Amino acid sequence: MSTPLLGLDWGSTRLRAFRFGVEGRVEEARALPWGSRHLPEGGFAEAFELAVDGWPRAPVLACGMVGSRGGWHEVPYLDTPCRLERLADALTTIDAPGGRQLHIVPGLRDPAGPDVMRGEETQIAGLLAQRPALSSQARLLLPGTHSKWVRVHDHAVTGFNTVMTGELFAVLRRHSILGASLPDGAADDDSAFARGVTASRNAGAAGALSRLFSARALMLEGALAPSAVADFLSGLLIGDELRMALAASWASPDEPVQVIGEDALCARYLQAAGLLGLSFLATPGTTTAHGLWQVAVAADLTTGYACP
Amino acid sequence: MSTPLLGLDWGSTRLRAFRFGVEGRVEEARALPWGSRHLPEGGFAEAFELAVDGWPRAPVLACGMVGSRGGWHEVPYLDTPCRLERLADALTTIDAPGGRQLHIVPGLRDPAGPDVMRGEETQIAGLLAQRPALSSQARLLLPGTHSKWVRVHDHAVTGFNTVMTGELFAVLRRHSILGASLPDGAADDDSAFARGVTASRNAGAAGALSRLFSARALMLEGALAPSAVADFLSGLLIGDELRMALAASWASPDEPVQVIGEDALCARYLQAAGLLGLSFLATPGTTTAHGLWQVAVAADLTTGYACP
Repeated sequence: MSTPLLGLDWGSTRLRAFRFGVEGRVEEARALPWGSRHLPEGGFAEAFELAVDGWPRAPVLACGMVGSRGGWHEVPYLDTPCRLERLADALTTIDAPGGRQLHIVPGLRDPAGPDVMRGEETQIAGLLAQRPALSSQARLLLPGTHSKWVRVHDHAVTGFNTVMTGELFAVLRRHSILGASLPDGAADDDSAFARGVTASRNAGAAGALSRLFSARALMLEGALAPSAVADFLSGLLIGDELRMALAASWASPDEPVQVIGEDALCARYLQAAGLLGLSFLATPGTTTAHGLWQVAVAADLTTGYACP
Repeated sequence: MSTPLLGLDWGSTRLRAFRFGVEGRVEEARALPWGSRHLPEGGFAEAFELAVDGWPRAPVLACGMVGSRGGWHEVPYLDTPCRLERLADALTTIDAPGGRQLHIVPGLRDPAGPDVMRGEETQIAGLLAQRPALSSQARLLLPGTHSKWVRVHDHAVTGFNTVMTGELFAVLRRHSILGASLPDGAADDDSAFARGVTASRNAGAAGALSRLFSARALMLEGALAPSAVADFLSGLLIGDELRMALAASWASPDEPVQVIGEDALCARYLQAAGLLGLSFLATPGTTTAHGLWQVAVAADLTTGYACP
């Protein structure tokens, strides 16, 4: 068994670990609940040991919130525009348990926001390695708790904007009057979602925040089932995110947006885009593991392991 | 002591009770923590008894969430456009403890939203009675947890829109990443507020949701003190509310908006309006008690008491 690299995709709520084989194939993957905001007793060091337990002594490369303030070790951001090859030159290395060394990928900062990302830069590096045609010119969307809208030009990330759609949905659902007296669980009601997107579109330039309360009013008068409120709200907020992206030129009717992320979430964004007459394409699955491999190769971390 | 009327301003989080004297003067006022969503053991009946305890057996008129589903007794809405005199003809009367009767003012519903209000209609009736010039034509803003933007024409409420700015601020402050690791308490930092309004304005048509995450990024890089984040966020959201109001023609650069509510909150909206080049005028203090009196007089509830 040759193991040129171990990789960690270490976000705020979870940790995924990869054991790579030759040519960057993922031979084994682990998922642990230890995000930077939720660690076991023993902290980062303990979570690290659990993640790589029993794996060979290969270099370990990590990306994500592990490198943030409040993470294991703060790694400075690289400012945009930033060519992705530069990630490999800006790794920070720290000592980790078991005599191992941990290399951490820097995040990116867009001074125009200001805005920041950690982890998505590695996901983007993985995508562009898989789809070289996108490197010259692309518009990307990485949807999630904090959606990232990204512009790529000439192998560089030229700018990005975070929209907190996922988190906004979660706090409104859990803590506001809109979520009061709703049934538990997700109904996954496509027609309620589409209705929310349409309501968002009908709000026009005013934006969907002006329609949030209508979710409550519609439910009170029986025009929206309690079980459909969450999906309506999701449609309203995602519709508004797309309106914003158009207004700020992150999306355009003339150029498809490449959506990278979990299948179900990508499907929702594609459905919303269709209702708004936009062209979105999905790249299913995560590309982070592939990005970690790319950065490691560029940083010569895998040298000596490539030919077992 | 002549008491032609007792009044209750009964919202979701608190209950205010008024003992009126001749000509509608408020002779005594009580504030109780028993909103419709937070009642003492014994429920509405017990809260009612505490509110009017020891007061004469006059008619009791209430407005607000007490008349909602989940309130004491659901009172149907009146649809807009709705002349405010119609409120008096649409009271619902129920038996209350101590052999008293309780009359409840209906809320309003704007079918265009749909949108609903309960309590604000009475506040508006009070304002228009105090300021008859506004009855022919006015734009009103009642800021709060759920801000109401209202159009008045020819003694009628012709339409309104609820914007959940206050609640959105509260859930983001308490439950999102934006509020994480902030100091407790309100700093009341006017310059941070102004900075948020300006950031909102600079977001242009994209709207301030696209700038929410910048509050986090600015704090991380030391450009915004943790103690200033809440006021920055407040400025961002209120600025966005005003942008929305302009886009949907609730506000206009050509006609002043009359702001009715608590002094400190009115002051914030006036500050934001000034930064955005809008003309807002404040009517300090609440007008609900006066509105209850107006509705009661129109409904002949005070007959026989007017001349002690």
